[in-house]
Amino acid sequence: MDRIPWEERPKGSKDVVWRYSQNPIINRDAIPTSNSVFNSAVVPFKDGFAGVFRCDNKAVQMNIFAGFSDDGINWKINDNPINFKAHDKGQVLGDYKYDPRVVFLEDRYWITWCEGHNGPTIGIGYTFDFKEFFQCESAFLPFNRNGVLLPQKIDGKYAMMSRPSDNGHTPFGDIYMSYSPDMKYWGEHRHMMSPTSFKDSAWQCTKIGAGSVPFLTDEGWLMFYHGVINTCNGFRYAMGSTILDTDQPHIVKYRTQPYLLTPSEIYEQVGDVSNVIFPCASLQDLENDKVTIFYGAADTVVAIAFGYISEILNFTKNNSII
Amino acid sequence: MDRIPWEERPKGSKDVVWRYSQNPIINRDAIPTSNSVFNSAVVPFKDGFAGVFRCDNKAVQMNIFAGFSDDGINWKINDNPINFKAHDKGQVLGDYKYDPRVVFLEDRYWITWCEGHNGPTIGIGYTFDFKEFFQCESAFLPFNRNGVLLPQKIDGKYAMMSRPSDNGHTPFGDIYMSYSPDMKYWGEHRHMMSPTSFKDSAWQCTKIGAGSVPFLTDEGWLMFYHGVINTCNGFRYAMGSTILDTDQPHIVKYRTQPYLLTPSEIYEQVGDVSNVIFPCASLQDLENDKVTIFYGAADTVVAIAFGYISEILNFTKNNSII
Amino acid sequence: MDRIPWEERPKGSKDVVWRYSQNPIINRDAIPTSNSVFNSAVVPFKDGFAGVFRCDNKAVQMNIFAGFSDDGINWKINDNPINFKAHDKGQVLGDYKYDPRVVFLEDRYWITWCEGHNGPTIGIGYTFDFKEFFQCESAFLPFNRNGVLLPQKIDGKYAMMSRPSDNGHTPFGDIYMSYSPDMKYWGEHRHMMSPTSFKDSAWQCTKIGAGSVPFLTDEGWLMFYHGVINTCNGFRYAMGSTILDTDQPHIVKYRTQPYLLTPSEIYEQVGDVSNVIFPCASLQDLENDKVTIFYGAADTVVAIAFGYISEILNFTKNNSII
Amino acid sequence: MDRIPWEERPKGSKDVVWRYSQNPIINRDAIPTSNSVFNSAVVPFKDGFAGVFRCDNKAVQMNIFAGFSDDGINWKINDNPINFKAHDKGQVLGDYKYDPRVVFLEDRYWITWCEGHNGPTIGIGYTFDFKEFFQCESAFLPFNRNGVLLPQKIDGKYAMMSRPSDNGHTPFGDIYMSYSPDMKYWGEHRHMMSPTSFKDSAWQCTKIGAGSVPFLTDEGWLMFYHGVINTCNGFRYAMGSTILDTDQPHIVKYRTQPYLLTPSEIYEQVGDVSNVIFPCASLQDLENDKVTIFYGAADTVVAIAFGYISEILNFTKNNSII
Amino acid sequence: MDRIPWEERPKGSKDVVWRYSQNPIINRDAIPTSNSVFNSAVVPFKDGFAGVFRCDNKAVQMNIFAGFSDDGINWKINDNPINFKAHDKGQVLGDYKYDPRVVFLEDRYWITWCEGHNGPTIGIGYTFDFKEFFQCESAFLPFNRNGVLLPQKIDGKYAMMSRPSDNGHTPFGDIYMSYSPDMKYWGEHRHMMSPTSFKDSAWQCTKIGAGSVPFLTDEGWLMFYHGVINTCNGFRYAMGSTILDTDQPHIVKYRTQPYLLTPSEIYEQVGDVSNVIFPCASLQDLENDKVTIFYGAADTVVAIAFGYISEILNFTKNNSII
Amino acid sequence: MDRIPWEERPKGSKDVVWRYSQNPIINRDAIPTSNSVFNSAVVPFKDGFAGVFRCDNKAVQMNIFAGFSDDGINWKINDNPINFKAHDKGQVLGDYKYDPRVVFLEDRYWITWCEGHNGPTIGIGYTFDFKEFFQCESAFLPFNRNGVLLPQKIDGKYAMMSRPSDNGHTPFGDIYMSYSPDMKYWGEHRHMMSPTSFKDSAWQCTKIGAGSVPFLTDEGWLMFYHGVINTCNGFRYAMGSTILDTDQPHIVKYRTQPYLLTPSEIYEQVGDVSNVIFPCASLQDLENDKVTIFYGAADTVVAIAFGYISEILNFTKNNSII
Repeated sequence: MDRIPWEERPKGSKDVVWRYSQNPIINRDAIPTSNSVFNSAVVPFKDGFAGVFRCDNKAVQMNIFAGFSDDGINWKINDNPINFKAHDKGQVLGDYKYDPRVVFLEDRYWITWCEGHNGPTIGIGYTFDFKEFFQCESAFLPFNRNGVLLPQKIDGKYAMMSRPSDNGHTPFGDIYMSYSPDMKYWGEHRHMMSPTSFKDSAWQCTKIGAGSVPFLTDEGWLMFYHGVINTCNGFRYAMGSTILDTDQPHIVKYRTQPYLLTPSEIYEQVGDVSNVIFPCASLQDLENDKVTIFYGAADTVVAIAFGYISEILNFTKNNSII
Repeated sequence: MDRIPWEERPKGSKDVVWRYSQNPIINRDAIPTSNSVFNSAVVPFKDGFAGVFRCDNKAVQMNIFAGFSDDGINWKINDNPINFKAHDKGQVLGDYKYDPRVVFLEDRYWITWCEGHNGPTIGIGYTFDFKEFFQCESAFLPFNRNGVLLPQKIDGKYAMMSRPSDNGHTPFGDIYMSYSPDMKYWGEHRHMMSPTSFKDSAWQCTKIGAGSVPFLTDEGWLMFYHGVINTCNGFRYAMGSTILDTDQPHIVKYRTQPYLLTPSEIYEQVGDVSNVIFPCASLQDLENDKVTIFYGAADTVVAIAFGYISEILNFTKNNSII
Repeated sequence: MDRIPWEERPKGSKDVVWRYSQNPIINRDAIPTSNSVFNSAVVPFKDGFAGVFRCDNKAVQMNIFAGFSDDGINWKINDNPINFKAHDKGQVLGDYKYDPRVVFLEDRYWITWCEGHNGPTIGIGYTFDFKEFFQCESAFLPFNRNGVLLPQKIDGKYAMMSRPSDNGHTPFGDIYMSYSPDMKYWGEHRHMMSPTSFKDSAWQCTKIGAGSVPFLTDEGWLMFYHGVINTCNGFRYAMGSTILDTDQPHIVKYRTQPYLLTPSEIYEQVGDVSNVIFPCASLQDLENDKVTIFYGAADTVVAIAFGYISEILNFTKNNSII
Repeated sequence: MDRIPWEERPKGSKDVVWRYSQNPIINRDAIPTSNSVFNSAVVPFKDGFAGVFRCDNKAVQMNIFAGFSDDGINWKINDNPINFKAHDKGQVLGDYKYDPRVVFLEDRYWITWCEGHNGPTIGIGYTFDFKEFFQCESAFLPFNRNGVLLPQKIDGKYAMMSRPSDNGHTPFGDIYMSYSPDMKYWGEHRHMMSPTSFKDSAWQCTKIGAGSVPFLTDEGWLMFYHGVINTCNGFRYAMGSTILDTDQPHIVKYRTQPYLLTPSEIYEQVGDVSNVIFPCASLQDLENDKVTIFYGAADTVVAIAFGYISEILNFTKNNSII
Repeated sequence: MDRIPWEERPKGSKDVVWRYSQNPIINRDAIPTSNSVFNSAVVPFKDGFAGVFRCDNKAVQMNIFAGFSDDGINWKINDNPINFKAHDKGQVLGDYKYDPRVVFLEDRYWITWCEGHNGPTIGIGYTFDFKEFFQCESAFLPFNRNGVLLPQKIDGKYAMMSRPSDNGHTPFGDIYMSYSPDMKYWGEHRHMMSPTSFKDSAWQCTKIGAGSVPFLTDEGWLMFYHGVINTCNGFRYAMGSTILDTDQPHIVKYRTQPYLLTPSEIYEQVGDVSNVIFPCASLQDLENDKVTIFYGAADTVVAIAFGYISEILNFTKNNSII
Repeated sequence: MDRIPWEERPKGSKDVVWRYSQNPIINRDAIPTSNSVFNSAVVPFKDGFAGVFRCDNKAVQMNIFAGFSDDGINWKINDNPINFKAHDKGQVLGDYKYDPRVVFLEDRYWITWCEGHNGPTIGIGYTFDFKEFFQCESAFLPFNRNGVLLPQKIDGKYAMMSRPSDNGHTPFGDIYMSYSPDMKYWGEHRHMMSPTSFKDSAWQCTKIGAGSVPFLTDEGWLMFYHGVINTCNGFRYAMGSTILDTDQPHIVKYRTQPYLLTPSEIYEQVGDVSNVIFPCASLQDLENDKVTIFYGAADTVVAIAFGYISEILNFTKNNSII
């Protein structure tokens, strides 16, 4: 992909990751029924891009919608949510869907999201064309959030990260990896990483969660994740990066002690939930060393940020808490 | 009343209820001693309007103040709080007063508010002229908030909605109706409506409370109420509408699944308590099908919004969760 | 009544109130379906005694049952719960009933209890014969517990104490008095007493609640009430006494700083809820200066205790925290 | 098995399930290092019985131990905990083990338990001879407890119930069924049952968990489970029964509204954690219609109770809350 | 001291510490006004023993009382609490006093206790004769509990352990050492030990606190301390031992992973607060290698236990978690 | 000092304290590594000013940095945190440092701050030149915050205020004074002031903490402090003033019932923690009756405000809650 959205680093800036000057790229009223559009995922598709978007409606019901873009910045989101067909018979229908991720793997686009099943867990579905969608069995028992698939099979098996949770706002949370031979039955659960101590890296000391779909680099899988601190005025979500071992991706090689982005623009600090940066996807132009990160801001809008992959890799290695 | 504040729907907007372009109409420093002016009630009075305003002073003590306006937008609030005289002897004096509502009923203006009586409960008073005020016995035992009277007797009895609460920030709350033959003794308590489930209408899934004084339409009593969601960064208050049965107003006929207004302007999102829209009154021009809603914003200022009554009735019926 | 249950003070004891040596008098399996029988109320009736008993069944559903006794110690409780007929039409049926009190007033036996109405509140009913029972409108809005009527009208009005609560285990609670002209509409709510400070009287520092029906003495109305301390292993309930003003019974004249009874027998310390003494009734033999107190023990069984009224009055006055 | 432990129903008792008169059968100091022995599982083995026992040591570290008995009542528990060998390479070692269940399935004895893996989840192991034990991959991601396998494959797949939890004392909890083709990867998660409402069956209104290994009857799979109520003095655990559909065991056909056993003997009411009855196993003599239930009491000792299977089935059907 | 209370180890017992067969030695009603007598301290005095006792009165007000004994088992406690005279002028009077410790140091008996000073902190006083008592300045700012002095100056300074706390039941807690040149000003605060992890030693995983006054052995200072686990039914307190460095007593050399005593007798399991063993003092007969430990049981009574010092030292070293 | 930063009161304003029109004076990115710069302290130094600044880095690790300014408005903060040398041997190193205060006393600049020592407590250090810094023993046991020294010895002793806390966000908090003969050992702890009641002054009803270093006036020591209210959306911090007795500064003579400043500018309302005004220092020009207050805003930036000392003294006396 060589046409990802891009804007050069602002003059004078030394930031490893910098924001798009025209953020947010998708506003809360992007479709007629939406209360907010955020925490959404995009992939290259045909000559442009496709995506799956979290649009809460004005009853604040959570659902996911398909959308399309030529340039990755200007998006046309469908007016109606994705209407999944059952892949397996006897499946359980979820109460709600939110926080999707999308990954192309083998022959199709896999979608994972937070699925309501007497509590949140990880839903799985797929599409070949972003028109017809199929829903599979959910991966795990509740309570779980932030399920993110790797874009390749590992040792012949699908690999998915997730964050075991509770049935509320969950004031704790580690990232685990699980494996599956068939995308239906899951096991070989491995603990990957925990929140840090308050003194070592307070922005990620309450809980962490997988963010964007990892992509492969010479150093391993590079992923953007979120970390949370519980302030006296609620949770604050910021973004870091981590490098996972290429062959055993449940092994975390590096992980940033500093954040890469923290809420400091008004659209990140003010909204339905203040002080949230929540990465769900990235687009890579490996040839040109570029990456564009998509993140939800303040649980209200979608924004993007840019960086050079090699710089981010170096930064992650040189500022690693591991 | 045919001179209520009014501004037409903005071009291109499809909102059923829209904000005044000059919001907020009352700022936090509207009187010299005020920290904030919000959650306040207005009624037609003589050739213009009168109101009872919640003005927290700079010690953040809560009290209610009378105010007057010719146009319903520009208000002159008295510098001193209402000095109630006792209607009954042996009454208990409250510790504080907040969140007033006003209704004209029979021969006088009745005021209800949240009265401190070893915890919050519903205070009742009245005035004929907004100069001299009388305080009656409180309606209920603590802990209660959001007492709203109907503007007519029902079957010969006064009818008041309220929201039983606890002694803190109350993470639950249903609306009940109670009846009284004499505005002093209350009974016949009826449950009216509960918070919704998270999946059906999350903006009102934590608690709800009566808002503006209901007014009669062909469909029943139309009332604007608030609903609350408990996010990981605290409570968010939005506004919906409900239609109550004309003769048995404790029966809820319709209730909006979507909100009508949610905090999305900076004066609603940022203030002493962020993300609050709290309706306490409306003015109707029934002849011209218009309604103007008064609401507190961010527990800091007063704002207004407009709508056509028939559209709101249709919206409420067509988007009802009941 | 001169045949109340009685046993003299044990030799060597200096206790103002002492337990029956054969406690508990009613066991948890007193009726075939019962999980527990406790927190129950008795009154003189015909030549003996009648009572209303809280019997939780083996599904731990709470309900109240009539029972009869010749001697006040050996009780025959009906196998089926009381089947109330509606006194008023349009009444709301409660979800559950517990913690009854009974009082003879004017021409009938009034029963009050904790009634489930989207949360606990105070149910009211009456009977003339303990065979046919009628249920009236509930007195208050939820959340409320421990509604206790006075056995005389005060200034022409019924008078009831209660303890405003929350919808859980309620870690706070004061006693209020309310008045009613007709047992249907209630008002004139007066704060009576609060928990004490931890340093002054820790056994009643978390919450308090009205217990037995007060009876008139030369000093005023004498009532046994419960006080609660929140230990690191949960709530502990003990019993004190209070004397209320004869004419204005919402005025508390005296109230014991020490408890009269605290859980120290195994049937009070061990049971469905450990460490609970919960008085709900007393029988008086005024001529002989005797009182017999009925209390629930460990939320499992019924026990009784005895005392001389004059001694209790003196103790209450001489050890008053007021 | 026709020699299960047995004692006839006490004279005069109408209880469907009754306790052994010599309870507890295993005391807290059953092995030299034990603080407590409870929540343990037994199966027929050779000419007698074998079991896996939760013995917390005097550092209150949790581990599981093998034990043997000729009569099912007198047990010899090994002094040292089970030393599992890894079935799969790369497995993660747990921090602790507790609350085992054992089931014979196909050719071996499968053991499931609560395994510490950065929080509790479900460990799986097996043995052929109760001498050599193998540990497999854990079934699920944390946080989970009460994993109970069915003793037959269902539609060619292993079936396991569990109770998703949080990382503390978990004040909620439903039972789910999951399926696996190979005892390694799990999916097809199905919600089975939830806690009841407070008013319908308070003893099981906070959380529930699978208990004994189900066994097949004409009516379906019969299982004893625990239900929990959160009192003001902590959790109380009682025991009910449920009948699951034979072919689709995630479908609950019947479930007792009343409990079968609730803490009412001193060894159930007093101990390391008071008021706990926690069933983990049963032994059946189908020919003679008898079942013996093994349960932990007060988190301190092991006790047993008896019943006739047909009576329990009838009771469950006739007193079902479903 | 060679006449400490003593009873040999029961036949067959292998316990390092064993209980007195006539426990409890002091009942809850030991003095006329007492609700409970527990968590108390004793020292050799003249030809016998003296002590300072926590007696909560029947208002459950906490205070400390002097008492005397010839044999250390049968105690005569004064009817009135200790009446302290001010050592320094301008001192602040506490609201309450509880959990005393006593130590002879230099020329007098020093008493430390939990002193109410807008929250609990450590009070200090002294006596020469257990008749006249002087109160000094409190050692620390609130919130603090379990202040225990060493019986010798360390490097010319007084040394006191304590457990910083919060203003409630404190679900955390480490032991620190502080030093003072003059018993008035304190500093050089050193962290000594923390609760253990749940998996390593659950009985002491929530909080710990200094218990008895340490005494010097060849291995260092031997102290009995309490550890707490937070069960689903509240806190459970057990007792362990620790050996502190002789010259730098804030350095913990050994600390038992297993407990020495856990609540398992009915007087420890049932009482005002169930499941509490709380050591506050020990008497040593160094010549004969004997120690007698005094502990509060169930926050209700005083009990004692015995052991051989050399065995306890060995056990502590051989079972140390450090 | 006659060159403190200054800007006259805005026209039309009647505020006793008013903000600088160019606030904030220090932005969150003031040094390359900083996430935020706030809650910082300044003093006159040589011909200008020096300060100690709380700069959280981008790992959100808290540390304190020296900085310098000619005019008190434009600051140059060092890129690296202060590197303290040990004053005493055997000192314990803290985990983190935040919220510094600075005071010149006798011959040097003393610095106090919140020091991580298994929880927050009060660190002490000093410098003569803001180049070389020495760290002393921490003053108190954890948990403590907001340690503020007086700029003179009182009766020959150092005097420090502090706010005993818990190990989290501390929903309570009073101010105490402690004294020390040598800045190493502390005692004579005196309670100074508590939060107010909700009805009297809600902005300071949850907790309070010492703010700026007091300075001496004819009325006593004038100090700016913070007060906190716990809203349904978290804590809000505002600023008041208090006058302490000159000779016995633990005696509070006056204390403002109204706040002097409350979050109402966007840089105070929006940031890492919204709605925070946190004063840590003031500069006085006594000759010209001027004071400049330095405060952290929204836990993100540094701002200043101005006032006339005599006006503030009068306001504090005339609006005192004491």
